[in-house]
Amino acid sequence: MNTSEYSDFKAGLLDQVSVLRANIRSGTHTSTTSGTAHSLVQGNVVILPADWANDFLLYCQSNPVACPLIGVSQIGNPALPGLGRDLDIRTDIPEYQVFRNGERAETLTDIRDVWRNDFVTFVLGCSFSFEDALIRAGLSIRNVEHGQNVSMYRSGITTQSAGRFHGNMVVSMRPFKAADAIRAIQITTRLPNAHGAPVHIGDPALIGITDIHTPDFGDAVTIGSDELPVFWACGVTPQVALENARPPIAITHVPGKMLLTERLNEELAVL
Amino acid sequence: MNTSEYSDFKAGLLDQVSVLRANIRSGTHTSTTSGTAHSLVQGNVVILPADWANDFLLYCQSNPVACPLIGVSQIGNPALPGLGRDLDIRTDIPEYQVFRNGERAETLTDIRDVWRNDFVTFVLGCSFSFEDALIRAGLSIRNVEHGQNVSMYRSGITTQSAGRFHGNMVVSMRPFKAADAIRAIQITTRLPNAHGAPVHIGDPALIGITDIHTPDFGDAVTIGSDELPVFWACGVTPQVALENARPPIAITHVPGKMLLTERLNEELAVL
Repeated sequence: MNTSEYSDFKAGLLDQVSVLRANIRSGTHTSTTSGTAHSLVQGNVVILPADWANDFLLYCQSNPVACPLIGVSQIGNPALPGLGRDLDIRTDIPEYQVFRNGERAETLTDIRDVWRNDFVTFVLGCSFSFEDALIRAGLSIRNVEHGQNVSMYRSGITTQSAGRFHGNMVVSMRPFKAADAIRAIQITTRLPNAHGAPVHIGDPALIGITDIHTPDFGDAVTIGSDELPVFWACGVTPQVALENARPPIAITHVPGKMLLTERLNEELAVL
Repeated sequence: MNTSEYSDFKAGLLDQVSVLRANIRSGTHTSTTSGTAHSLVQGNVVILPADWANDFLLYCQSNPVACPLIGVSQIGNPALPGLGRDLDIRTDIPEYQVFRNGERAETLTDIRDVWRNDFVTFVLGCSFSFEDALIRAGLSIRNVEHGQNVSMYRSGITTQSAGRFHGNMVVSMRPFKAADAIRAIQITTRLPNAHGAPVHIGDPALIGITDIHTPDFGDAVTIGSDELPVFWACGVTPQVALENARPPIAITHVPGKMLLTERLNEELAVL
């Protein structure tokens, strides 16, 4: 690829994300964003009142593997200019989960009616970025191959508490043969802003997962007898911390229905 | 460490290796070099008649993970100036294994009497370099902790044939808990000239090892129920290829009794 080809490539991606975003904004696209705009960074989202923002910022900084911060908004401003030219966080996610006092309340496809002038938006990197990198390296990802959402579990791994936020880590799991698992560790190490290297490999019970076939979020996938389950920290972890912190209101994306940004996955790589 | 401290550090290492080399040269030190001069590169050695050298060179280049070449001598010259100031390959290994027509024949502590003017020496990187890097990262290596030689196995992984050289890969195994195994994969990826990342992790049967408790070379180590066996390509692999190629004569080190060089392990790192 030469520089001119790169410009065309990036322009094509931005056109593609503009169409997708218009469909999400209008409520036409309400399903998972997995497999869409796959060269571009997708983000986990947490929206909180400003008086909860400092605690949450500290929680992210204390748990950078589960909560790699790639964007924070101004108070009350629904734009995220560092992540997209005309992003509006009130309309640009396929489906939102509202939490009230830590309980999962309504889901919405648009949060303009519940938006508040003291809301702060946090965007965290997402494993979809490293899935793209793994596929480009020739690896096959079971949930992508089968058109499923990734398997996610409430693990027994504790996170670092910060203010009112605390709880166990949510992990995503993808099965690989050993050689591919080793390659996946190498590739994801390059992408600390997309959760980086796995946190566990092998026996699920060692991280407190009693039934690998029943994920807490997403879909179950088959695991071959010659495969190892490989576990990454997951951006759903803050939703567990929200359940524990019980802010009067908080809004997140629905797992798998992410914010599409205009940043390239490759821009998140450290080497 | 500042530059002056680095100079002192390196001078100290060279003094240390000079003493060790003198003891090896005089036949006083005939045991494993594991745990000695641990900041310095140790090498696997294969010595062959010149008319076998081209095939072997191609074999190494075709199998760089098992056979990372870090030095090749001039024909008939026992010096290796790139690896040490006054190295003499005829005297500077604790114990040599002579192969005759592919069969393990005598072992010697000095090969001056069998040296030939057509011999070519090949030196390959060794896992002792990455053991040093793992220990510096705070990992505990079972065989080092217990003062044992590492466990090595004839695996079912085939190598790329080259001329008369062919055969399966020998692998070394170290058990780790999952998080340490992941860290070990990251660290050894930096050191491709010391075998680099593992070739397998988990079930030994998947790479043709039927009894993990009975290594083909080195010592058996305990593996905890919460640990995964992690397998790296091993510089003993060429000895299997020698058994198959059956050159009239070849000389190697005895596994675990390596050539001490004056190169720092850190000089082998790619990043």
